Amino acid sequence: MTSNRLIYLPLGGAGEIGMNCYVYGYGPEGKERLIVVDLGVTFPEMSGSPGVDLIMADITWLAERADRVEAIFITHAHEDHIGALGLLWPRLKKKVYARRFTATIGRLKLDEAGLPADTITTVEPRPTVIEAGPFKVQFVPVSHSIPESSALIIDTPAGRVFHTADFKIDPDPVVGEPWDDAAIAAIAAERPIKALMCDSTNVFSVHPGRSESSIREPLREFIAGAGGMVVATTFGSNVARLRTLAEAARAADRSICVLGRSMRRMLSASEQAGVMSNFPRTVSPEEALEIPRRNLMLLVTGSQGERRAASAQLSRGKYLGLELKAGDTFLFSSKTIPGNEREVLRIVNALSEMSVDVVDDCGGKYHVSGHANRPDLEHVHRLLLPDMLIPMHGEHRHLREHVKIAHQSGIAAEIATNGMMIDLTGETPQVVEYIETGRVYLDGSALIGAMDGVVRDRIRMALNGHVMVTVILDESDEPLGEAWVELSGLPQVGRGERALIETLEGDLSEFLEGAGAKVLRDDNKLDEALRRVVRQVCVEEIGKKPEVTVVVSRLQAE
Amino acid sequence: MTSNRLIYLPLGGAGEIGMNCYVYGYGPEGKERLIVVDLGVTFPEMSGSPGVDLIMADITWLAERADRVEAIFITHAHEDHIGALGLLWPRLKKKVYARRFTATIGRLKLDEAGLPADTITTVEPRPTVIEAGPFKVQFVPVSHSIPESSALIIDTPAGRVFHTADFKIDPDPVVGEPWDDAAIAAIAAERPIKALMCDSTNVFSVHPGRSESSIREPLREFIAGAGGMVVATTFGSNVARLRTLAEAARAADRSICVLGRSMRRMLSASEQAGVMSNFPRTVSPEEALEIPRRNLMLLVTGSQGERRAASAQLSRGKYLGLELKAGDTFLFSSKTIPGNEREVLRIVNALSEMSVDVVDDCGGKYHVSGHANRPDLEHVHRLLLPDMLIPMHGEHRHLREHVKIAHQSGIAAEIATNGMMIDLTGETPQVVEYIETGRVYLDGSALIGAMDGVVRDRIRMALNGHVMVTVILDESDEPLGEAWVELSGLPQVGRGERALIETLEGDLSEFLEGAGAKVLRDDNKLDEALRRVVRQVCVEEIGKKPEVTVVVSRLQAE
Repeated sequence: MTSNRLIYLPLGGAGEIGMNCYVYGYGPEGKERLIVVDLGVTFPEMSGSPGVDLIMADITWLAERADRVEAIFITHAHEDHIGALGLLWPRLKKKVYARRFTATIGRLKLDEAGLPADTITTVEPRPTVIEAGPFKVQFVPVSHSIPESSALIIDTPAGRVFHTADFKIDPDPVVGEPWDDAAIAAIAAERPIKALMCDSTNVFSVHPGRSESSIREPLREFIAGAGGMVVATTFGSNVARLRTLAEAARAADRSICVLGRSMRRMLSASEQAGVMSNFPRTVSPEEALEIPRRNLMLLVTGSQGERRAASAQLSRGKYLGLELKAGDTFLFSSKTIPGNEREVLRIVNALSEMSVDVVDDCGGKYHVSGHANRPDLEHVHRLLLPDMLIPMHGEHRHLREHVKIAHQSGIAAEIATNGMMIDLTGETPQVVEYIETGRVYLDGSALIGAMDGVVRDRIRMALNGHVMVTVILDESDEPLGEAWVELSGLPQVGRGERALIETLEGDLSEFLEGAGAKVLRDDNKLDEALRRVVRQVCVEEIGKKPEVTVVVSRLQAE
Repeated sequence: MTSNRLIYLPLGGAGEIGMNCYVYGYGPEGKERLIVVDLGVTFPEMSGSPGVDLIMADITWLAERADRVEAIFITHAHEDHIGALGLLWPRLKKKVYARRFTATIGRLKLDEAGLPADTITTVEPRPTVIEAGPFKVQFVPVSHSIPESSALIIDTPAGRVFHTADFKIDPDPVVGEPWDDAAIAAIAAERPIKALMCDSTNVFSVHPGRSESSIREPLREFIAGAGGMVVATTFGSNVARLRTLAEAARAADRSICVLGRSMRRMLSASEQAGVMSNFPRTVSPEEALEIPRRNLMLLVTGSQGERRAASAQLSRGKYLGLELKAGDTFLFSSKTIPGNEREVLRIVNALSEMSVDVVDDCGGKYHVSGHANRPDLEHVHRLLLPDMLIPMHGEHRHLREHVKIAHQSGIAAEIATNGMMIDLTGETPQVVEYIETGRVYLDGSALIGAMDGVVRDRIRMALNGHVMVTVILDESDEPLGEAWVELSGLPQVGRGERALIETLEGDLSEFLEGAGAKVLRDDNKLDEALRRVVRQVCVEEIGKKPEVTVVVSRLQAE
């Protein structure tokens, strides 16, 4: 007779693609021992989070229960799974487990944050078992688009959970372990799968996924056929792709120069972790300058149009002395993530102006995805035959579609979005609680809540402009001089070519002259009245209601 | 012996998709008589033009030569061709020519702007000829995705120009005139085409375009098979699509309710202009509320995710009393324009949360484009056999690709982007001048230049936040009281949980106490020094360099 339960609580990554953070708990209600799977980030964008550097899950719920947290497991080294490690670890201060390559990247992050890198323990894959309180966890190698991506087997007294993390079915992934149907099926044969937590990214892709190795020949042919310099971009962490590209370059008698810190870092981590040996020799940018263009290929960062990455820099002109010219070829061996189209097209058009030929993934000829497509997901469902399925790693539309697929196969399934605590103990998943969750922004060096109003104020200033009013009152609450106005982000002239500042200062001063003592004496009333004047004038003059900051200074009798 | 020349000058729409505005000139150099083709807008976005309402071409060059402008021709009523009419017409004040439907929309725009609607002359298509100085212009009906889209034949003493405007090859466009190969070929047979100015939007689409009528059956089947209420969105101006959708709804025994002002306006303009009769009867939102869901279809605006349009409103809850529910179906009979993915997906996910089934264009099953694809463009090149081709209506990458295609067929061609004046008089197009051009923003009721710094300041405030500092100095330039700081869009606390405002005020006041008379006396020096303190403190405390506004008030001896 026990009241122990097994719970699942996504704090990030469920209902969005990014900032993955999942919690599992086992024990009596409210006293479950907890483990955390992944601490990832999401990248900000101008329209929703201007000025922000990184976005991560709000782990307040978890931090308040840090004493119940046994350990942190990182499935792989993509930023949306490991990116917040250096930022959020101090709130938990628990042991971190990861495979060698992931651990190498993780230690770099902790180092940079001035945190103890030895908090990360490198673990071997299954059958090695990590015991963390009531949990027994094994890392299961799966194919993805980064070395050593791993699913997790999470054994608990209430049953076995299979957490896929990010994966694809790839029998020949170029770098790393091939997908192994038999090995996956053996996991369910060993102990039935109670719950499958499953990647949902590509649930809308109806064709079976293709192997990383399937683009080797097309890339070879393409690079061999190119005329001038070839520049290829892809995700820096996709070292299999980098290897394919580099080998194709060597086959075409081209030297390889790697531009972009994150890409070089991934390559060196791959070597360090022993996941990739014999990567073709690369040359430095200085050496590259001496090599004829037709014997050179640049491997560059910035496939998503990031402004400061090598691709964007090259599209704007010289970068480390290297420069694109008519007759060169630029290859996007990547897919544009929805939302990044504008930035990527800006690069494409800038390259077009340089008469550089731009080639994109060409409908999959030069790029394959790292996630399992719908038929692959169905295949995994059949291999593992779970009692229940909870989709993760997807927007709501992905989760919902994934649940539909599960139901079609007769598998109990539930949409669980961030903050929904699911009890997995029974026959079917049950939503038992809604945890307050959300997003935290790294903004410069500060961590701010997404709902703190800071970013809201930035967006308002960007949309409406900003008027600052300064008024000085003397000891008897009488205006001293005129109102002073500064504008930021607003047109200088209003209707009839009148200077907006002058109209504002005139109307504000006029208001002050006529204002009664009751208003002049009361900071709030005065502030509100001055704001009203500003808004009225602005609507009249420029058809806009700006943000207004009023500073009333009162001189004290000395 | 004449020194007359024929010139072409795109001011908008060449090197971008949007704000089309093309100028043709004929006459002695610098004294050419001019005509304008289209006055369109582009829509702003948060990342590049926050707070802006509309974007249009800077027509300063043209306005300064208004005495040489003979007339304005509007090819069709899409916003990117007619949207700036009410805003820019006052700078030219010339007669406007358009076909009936376009003229109807144009008059509404002039009316709203308080301008004389009778400035627009409705013209019949070819063989009607409009004489405008040395130009003889004919409107040639072409198929597109709005009624009465027209190409222009522009005859000059130097030869015949064919300006395609936006078109597709559609033998059965549902509404309006079918594409007529023979009629187009006859134009070239009548007089050889000196220059073809050609739509480039779909130059990268390699398959022949499909007819609007090809999606009639798929849409009928789809709507007949849907369970609850059906909501369909498309461009409001695509009245052929609206008709197809409405007829499919009627066939499935559904009443039709149209939500969204722009869509209703297009439908009524179509009727008014006589381009569409017998559109199925529609019901009002109030009537719709009384109709069983399975007998109802809503036709709604907002296919691009526009926040205030009906689609977005419905995704957020009730709109005019109507509300989506589980079992309803939402159809995007439209393509997401690159850059709008985020907004569209926001709607899709919100609908998913309501358990509404969302269906998109399904790879063309429920949507066809209004622009000619690559094989269609090649077909038109062959029909018209122009001496030269200038691609328009495209980003640089489109224009460049289109030029390549022309060269492959042995046609002289040149990339002409906004501001490049091309002399068409000789055998091949020659770039003869670069005109200063750019973008003008409608911001509230003000028109501001894109490079005026207003929007730059908004973006800076959004990225960096804004600190306002107020300092009062007495008659002898001594600080009176402490410095006062206001923050907008910045974290409240810095390192060690210190309140940022207090740290700033403390350090500023300390600086003022120690500052010498030389600094305190000089507004510029003081301003600069205070800024420096603010930036230093902010970098230290929050890792950011904010925008700073300093107000120094000096009390005057009375």
